[in-house]
Amino acid sequence: MKLNILGCYSATPRTFTNPTAQVLEINNHIFLIDCGEGTQVQLRKNKVKFNRIKHIFISHLHGDHFFGLVGLISTFRLLGRDTDLHIYAPKGLKEVITLQMKLSNSWTNYNLYFHELTSKSSEIIFEDQKVTVQTIPLDHRVYTNGFLFKEKEGERKLNMNAVLNSSIDVSYYRKLKQGFDVTNEAGTLIKNDAVTFPPNKPKSYAFCSDTAYNEAIVPIIDEVDVLYHESTFLEQHAKLAAPTKHSTAKQAASIAKQANVGQLILGHYSTRYSDLNVFKEEAQTIFDNVKLGDDGKIFEF
Amino acid sequence: MKLNILGCYSATPRTFTNPTAQVLEINNHIFLIDCGEGTQVQLRKNKVKFNRIKHIFISHLHGDHFFGLVGLISTFRLLGRDTDLHIYAPKGLKEVITLQMKLSNSWTNYNLYFHELTSKSSEIIFEDQKVTVQTIPLDHRVYTNGFLFKEKEGERKLNMNAVLNSSIDVSYYRKLKQGFDVTNEAGTLIKNDAVTFPPNKPKSYAFCSDTAYNEAIVPIIDEVDVLYHESTFLEQHAKLAAPTKHSTAKQAASIAKQANVGQLILGHYSTRYSDLNVFKEEAQTIFDNVKLGDDGKIFEF
Repeated sequence: MKLNILGCYSATPRTFTNPTAQVLEINNHIFLIDCGEGTQVQLRKNKVKFNRIKHIFISHLHGDHFFGLVGLISTFRLLGRDTDLHIYAPKGLKEVITLQMKLSNSWTNYNLYFHELTSKSSEIIFEDQKVTVQTIPLDHRVYTNGFLFKEKEGERKLNMNAVLNSSIDVSYYRKLKQGFDVTNEAGTLIKNDAVTFPPNKPKSYAFCSDTAYNEAIVPIIDEVDVLYHESTFLEQHAKLAAPTKHSTAKQAASIAKQANVGQLILGHYSTRYSDLNVFKEEAQTIFDNVKLGDDGKIFEF
Repeated sequence: MKLNILGCYSATPRTFTNPTAQVLEINNHIFLIDCGEGTQVQLRKNKVKFNRIKHIFISHLHGDHFFGLVGLISTFRLLGRDTDLHIYAPKGLKEVITLQMKLSNSWTNYNLYFHELTSKSSEIIFEDQKVTVQTIPLDHRVYTNGFLFKEKEGERKLNMNAVLNSSIDVSYYRKLKQGFDVTNEAGTLIKNDAVTFPPNKPKSYAFCSDTAYNEAIVPIIDEVDVLYHESTFLEQHAKLAAPTKHSTAKQAASIAKQANVGQLILGHYSTRYSDLNVFKEEAQTIFDNVKLGDDGKIFEF
């Protein structure tokens, strides 16, 4: 799994900072998460192949999370795209995009599918053989979802020494990987766990932006490997965080701790702060494994 | 008059090129012309004071000319703007902006006035004591206007030597500037043109993008000081220019020559060309005073 942060600053694009957008590489998927103004340029700068993006997840309809989408959709057409594009977003986005395309007498050469979200409970919105994506209902000023990206549990791995010592025919290897017991050439039943190792632990990533401090998400993101949680403010501005329904770095860390996540990445910083290290220091008073998100940064896990 | 080109490339924003947006400074106005994605960042890079922009002119509703507007409107609010903003644009833009603000549960702290354009004839859309702005109907795939910015004729200038030699009382100076004859202290009638110089020639700037070759605009832009005319293509791709309703550099120059303009600025280049000088060379086979527009370039006239 590879996370490429294209932008992680709040409110507006600026000369050296970009609004929210991330690219998550997971099991051959390239998922785009949020799409603030200028995301298509950030995709170019970060050398992400446009054609490999087939699924875009939009958390909510504040401009700094979706104003770049209509331009990206339009650029996909200009680049001659013909592969399907799926967009998962709060209800209303389809109307905005469609209206703009109608006014510009424009269209797409490719199939564009809108999956409009309205549920206030967590739901699976994408699933294939290896990956699921489910919503994380957040608490913000407008209807907002985070997204939980999870690998499915893979096959068991053969313990080749044990397999060979047990004289199991090659034609049973598939069944062993699937967890079944098998009978060897001598007719003896071989228990599966005697000759296999458990599968790799499936990896998971949770994206939570924008949200007030919200313990209700803890069970959903329990033990994820990596949590991106917004920290628009520091505790010194907690009085601004509450009414705007944003979080402080300390609150983000508290959620990370309660959910026992592997690593916390911070982001969605207010541009009032010039030194990001203070966010990290504040979060680390609660939870140790904290990384600072920043535009162009790549996390592999 | 000062023209700051923020972006002048066609189709999409890219790592090093920006879609159409220009700032025209004329008689203390800061007019923004078109507003492609990323314009607010270009405004910052070019150190244009956001609060001084009170009038925005949008030529047409193709994305590369207006996708940056909703973000700019939203940023104006975040920056605490309270001065009025007027937007002159084809009918439909108000609906798009309003819908996006509704969906994001957003608003403006300032008065936002939409002046929706539908006329296919040239019309004056802004006028004050010193400046007029009128539309230049263009020939493009959707309803499109260029804009003609014109200073009004100013006051005559006093020839101070002649004024003093004619013993004219100071209280008559205002009348002299307004073109009236006056009577001096000795009771003699002094003809206005004996003691004044004509006013400075009013300056004018015409913005014409996007458009097919269209001689119908020549009378409207007759003798303007500076013409910005799109040249998406070179003559070698004239077959692409016709169906997409764009112009070649040579066609832009032909319009400039017929209208006897002072200077031609080219722009809206297709990104298929790596060397812009070829545009200039092609245009100069028809019209001599050609400049290449480019992002960040400033023209003073």
